[in-house]
Amino acid sequence: MRISFEDMRNEFKRVLIKKGCSEAVADEAAESFTSTSCDGVYSHGVNRFPRVIEYIEKGHINPEATPERIDAFGALERWDGKLGLGNLMAKYAMDRTISLADAFGIGCVALRNNNHWMRGGEYGWQAANSGYIGICWTNTQPNMPAWGAIDQRIGNNPLIFALPRKKGHIVADLAMSQFSYGKMEKYKMDNKTLPVPGGYDSAGNLTQDPNEIEESGKVLPIGFWKGSGLSIVLDLLASMLANGNTTNDLSEFGEDEYAVSQVFIAISPNRLGNMDEIEESINESIKYIKKSQTENESDEIYFPGEQSAKTRRENLKNGIPVNAEIWEKIKSL
Amino acid sequence: MRISFEDMRNEFKRVLIKKGCSEAVADEAAESFTSTSCDGVYSHGVNRFPRVIEYIEKGHINPEATPERIDAFGALERWDGKLGLGNLMAKYAMDRTISLADAFGIGCVALRNNNHWMRGGEYGWQAANSGYIGICWTNTQPNMPAWGAIDQRIGNNPLIFALPRKKGHIVADLAMSQFSYGKMEKYKMDNKTLPVPGGYDSAGNLTQDPNEIEESGKVLPIGFWKGSGLSIVLDLLASMLANGNTTNDLSEFGEDEYAVSQVFIAISPNRLGNMDEIEESINESIKYIKKSQTENESDEIYFPGEQSAKTRRENLKNGIPVNAEIWEKIKSL
Repeated sequence: MRISFEDMRNEFKRVLIKKGCSEAVADEAAESFTSTSCDGVYSHGVNRFPRVIEYIEKGHINPEATPERIDAFGALERWDGKLGLGNLMAKYAMDRTISLADAFGIGCVALRNNNHWMRGGEYGWQAANSGYIGICWTNTQPNMPAWGAIDQRIGNNPLIFALPRKKGHIVADLAMSQFSYGKMEKYKMDNKTLPVPGGYDSAGNLTQDPNEIEESGKVLPIGFWKGSGLSIVLDLLASMLANGNTTNDLSEFGEDEYAVSQVFIAISPNRLGNMDEIEESINESIKYIKKSQTENESDEIYFPGEQSAKTRRENLKNGIPVNAEIWEKIKSL
Repeated sequence: MRISFEDMRNEFKRVLIKKGCSEAVADEAAESFTSTSCDGVYSHGVNRFPRVIEYIEKGHINPEATPERIDAFGALERWDGKLGLGNLMAKYAMDRTISLADAFGIGCVALRNNNHWMRGGEYGWQAANSGYIGICWTNTQPNMPAWGAIDQRIGNNPLIFALPRKKGHIVADLAMSQFSYGKMEKYKMDNKTLPVPGGYDSAGNLTQDPNEIEESGKVLPIGFWKGSGLSIVLDLLASMLANGNTTNDLSEFGEDEYAVSQVFIAISPNRLGNMDEIEESINESIKYIKKSQTENESDEIYFPGEQSAKTRRENLKNGIPVNAEIWEKIKSL
């Protein structure tokens, strides 16, 4: 089934108000959950919404919290998310980062004690929509073994780079694991194998079978040791700048994930000259890459963010695809 | 054979002066080539040195060039490397970035028309050695197919994240290709297969055979589509901020690679409070990760930068390992 953007937003808003959000908070948070779903990241939008409500009920999320500035020096600030709604606190943090970039050319906000920010790409798109370069990352609970290890002691810590462009922003949004748990679950449900290896079986061999990976817990970091190393440094940078929890600290909170650490960087390219000429050269690059040779003539090469934008246009027109069971659950909340 | 740090530096310095460098430039560049070799990145130190000399002779590198500031706004600056020695121009750029971070908490320098910066990690270590967080990346010639493509139209664009720490900096330095060309060449020479898949054979299957990958040219991006997407956005961000060449532009310069675009970001964590307590928490995290379970009890889990530091200590003590033929070549220059 498909639900229109407006109906989905209104439904989210109704539930959030019922669970104690003010109208303004519910409005803004509902917009963010809907926008993530509309861009095709259902796992961190509509499908995740019931868990966010559960976290509000458990007291992990305080829907009325607003972030507080803890420390600041010039273009660098440290904030506390006070366990507010993760996607709202992150949005406020990127807004603040953009203001700093506006004043200084570049700005950085580190945010501690935030909840899961849902789709990290959201804050890259936010920066790009305002004409800024956005870079951000978050740490997570341990959900991946470090390279060479068996047990999960590092996070998959998504990293986002976004470039603003009139002809379509370029947004790379990547977790350090090859597949998200949501994606692997989907392949399992559909009885399909992964398109590329996503982890190891219990014997230590690379496999495309999501069942074997679930059994071993040995999720593959992107680039093997490379994604593992990047995950470690991203976690520790976030906790250092935010004076917030590390993945190690988060491992002690039990099964639920809250109070993570995040970093937001924005850069204002328009504070430097020649932007029209530069955008032209970037457009030429995109053309060059898209004209790559492919195995089959019908194959298309995409730049990062292109498919999200396409999905968004389709879902705005036709409605956002929703699993009927999940939608019923949300309506019953 | 092994050459002491001092002997190697003196030999590099001798050659650089002979090829037209001033004593001061030769001194600083020789230090950088030696330090990269000492850390174990021979492919971008001693083994690459003859090619740098060749580029000076061809006129691609102007050893007397100094970078020029083109544009600036607050903590954000755009510089031109004037085709100087790549590792020196990059060092100057990171020095300048650190000054900006000192003044504003965070700083960013974009550098155009630089030559190959050799080991990118160098500038991460440089920032960390001064107590700063360092983030930097470069674009390159096209040397990898975009995800889904056959021909090489994107670069492997190394990306560096460095965190300063009294007990050993944490430095992740990763190209977007699974293996560098230098590494694959080494496996080929030793008649060995790669430890994990590094690309595709001509039939489109993942392979660990470096010969098959060389034949197909289908080098594997880290994380498949993820490294491909990250490569594209890093290239375009560097060219946007530097008003410099894109990988597309570099494809038109023929076989030699010069006039690349780079970005340097530094952050001053010491401008924010609680750093002693934070460092303690980071040390705890490292302990936690290093205590991961492993297949064999003797296996060790490393944090990024740990092995470089270990190699550095060993090579400082025992001398830097050098291929005798390459060393003879350098002595004959």
